[in-house]
Amino acid sequence: MCIYSRNIHVRLQDIDAAGILFFAQVFEYCHDTYFALLADRGIDLPHELAHGAHIMPLVHCEADFKSPMRFGDAVTVAITGASAGKSSYRVHYRITGTGDPEDVRCTATTIHAVVDRQTFRSAPRIPDLIYEALEIPNPHTP
Amino acid sequence: MCIYSRNIHVRLQDIDAAGILFFAQVFEYCHDTYFALLADRGIDLPHELAHGAHIMPLVHCEADFKSPMRFGDAVTVAITGASAGKSSYRVHYRITGTGDPEDVRCTATTIHAVVDRQTFRSAPRIPDLIYEALEIPNPHTP
Amino acid sequence: MCIYSRNIHVRLQDIDAAGILFFAQVFEYCHDTYFALLADRGIDLPHELAHGAHIMPLVHCEADFKSPMRFGDAVTVAITGASAGKSSYRVHYRITGTGDPEDVRCTATTIHAVVDRQTFRSAPRIPDLIYEALEIPNPHTP
Amino acid sequence: MCIYSRNIHVRLQDIDAAGILFFAQVFEYCHDTYFALLADRGIDLPHELAHGAHIMPLVHCEADFKSPMRFGDAVTVAITGASAGKSSYRVHYRITGTGDPEDVRCTATTIHAVVDRQTFRSAPRIPDLIYEALEIPNPHTP
Repeated sequence: MCIYSRNIHVRLQDIDAAGILFFAQVFEYCHDTYFALLADRGIDLPHELAHGAHIMPLVHCEADFKSPMRFGDAVTVAITGASAGKSSYRVHYRITGTGDPEDVRCTATTIHAVVDRQTFRSAPRIPDLIYEALEIPNPHTP
Repeated sequence: MCIYSRNIHVRLQDIDAAGILFFAQVFEYCHDTYFALLADRGIDLPHELAHGAHIMPLVHCEADFKSPMRFGDAVTVAITGASAGKSSYRVHYRITGTGDPEDVRCTATTIHAVVDRQTFRSAPRIPDLIYEALEIPNPHTP
Repeated sequence: MCIYSRNIHVRLQDIDAAGILFFAQVFEYCHDTYFALLADRGIDLPHELAHGAHIMPLVHCEADFKSPMRFGDAVTVAITGASAGKSSYRVHYRITGTGDPEDVRCTATTIHAVVDRQTFRSAPRIPDLIYEALEIPNPHTP
Repeated sequence: MCIYSRNIHVRLQDIDAAGILFFAQVFEYCHDTYFALLADRGIDLPHELAHGAHIMPLVHCEADFKSPMRFGDAVTVAITGASAGKSSYRVHYRITGTGDPEDVRCTATTIHAVVDRQTFRSAPRIPDLIYEALEIPNPHTP
């Protein structure tokens, strides 16, 4: 399953002195893909950030590294699914060699809380546009 | 419990457009502290990386963000403990406001596999210097 | 004049605590565009880096910041030209608001030396593929 | 001449796929040292950024790379001097192997404009605290 994906190449500067992707960089690959999905599906992130009632800071992230990524590797960063709790949602990622779904390099998950932009307190519910963009069934829709 | 710690300030460039620490940056704080511990305890990392039989790539990482970090915040990055499996070990981190152990901003864990430098295959066991540096009881010591 | 360009959006994490692009990030925008040009024009960079006789490390860079870039800004990173010396070449960049060539945000230059991959000594001349890729008249071509 | 310096080690993640420091990273080394100097000399940067009348964005930067930096290298990042114009000032940096002033790895310069925090228009003059912190003779002092 894949609800969105981007093809990228591992960059010169993403590599560390061990000759493989520096692990923290994988979260930029994932987060850039998550933001690309939201933008593609009509969410104006800079506007939301500056003027929206809520923001969705990341409260948890994790990644499992299955196989090293090296300079120039063509990889596909896929968002494989998402799910929601009361005032948070989780997004799942899989990075594979482009064109080879069996060649899994990394899987990752991020959890985002929906909070008041000023107070950082939990919002009573997740905005409808998030349910829609991430293809999560919306319990608030009749 | 804390086996090692460093005090840092959150930098201008670690902040994102939401005005808080960009989440992936927290892993640089943790990893820099982990490397500082190893170096302080006598492990010559550049030498090990270039000439050692084994390297210890990160195979898993996770972080929980409890409270936002902002530009200039004085924080303490502590390594709170470590444990070992057969050919991997895990390291635990806690980031708090400096001088206020109750002010937890983030907790994190990294898991490192010990692998052959050329083949990336699991090593039969963890090097003694890792047990020692990370204060993990060494089952191979009589 | 423009020999190559890419359209990008300023990312959340490229912004600093002052709310504008952290200056050093502009060099990633430029370098990514330079590498995209080389790859698009048939230079296999990972292969060259691993097996080529020469590498082309950056020996100088500079940038002038004309107008701030903020989160979400659509900008065009253009390579506006290149020129060559005996064993080095320079590449010029201009970043403008996408669709508005008058809206200059930054100009930059990088200078790359052609050196022996092992010794870092100057090469006797620039490889033909660099002249070709960067549209620099090649004095060695009859 | 040196008005401030910091000793650092080149980090694993600062290295690129060519095995040397990724060039743009040198500006983080310089900027971190510049901010450390200002903080050490009593300038509360987060406060200034949030509440001061003026901010000092970087309007130009340049660097010359003399000799490669590799993982683990001990280097000293020195601020070698500063000078001022009407509403801007420049800061000069030199990075050398620690303990070997002849082993120059990189020199760099940054130019900072003093601008109104809201409008980004040039300030009429440079704040006294900048003259003082950067050891620039202050023409406004009787």
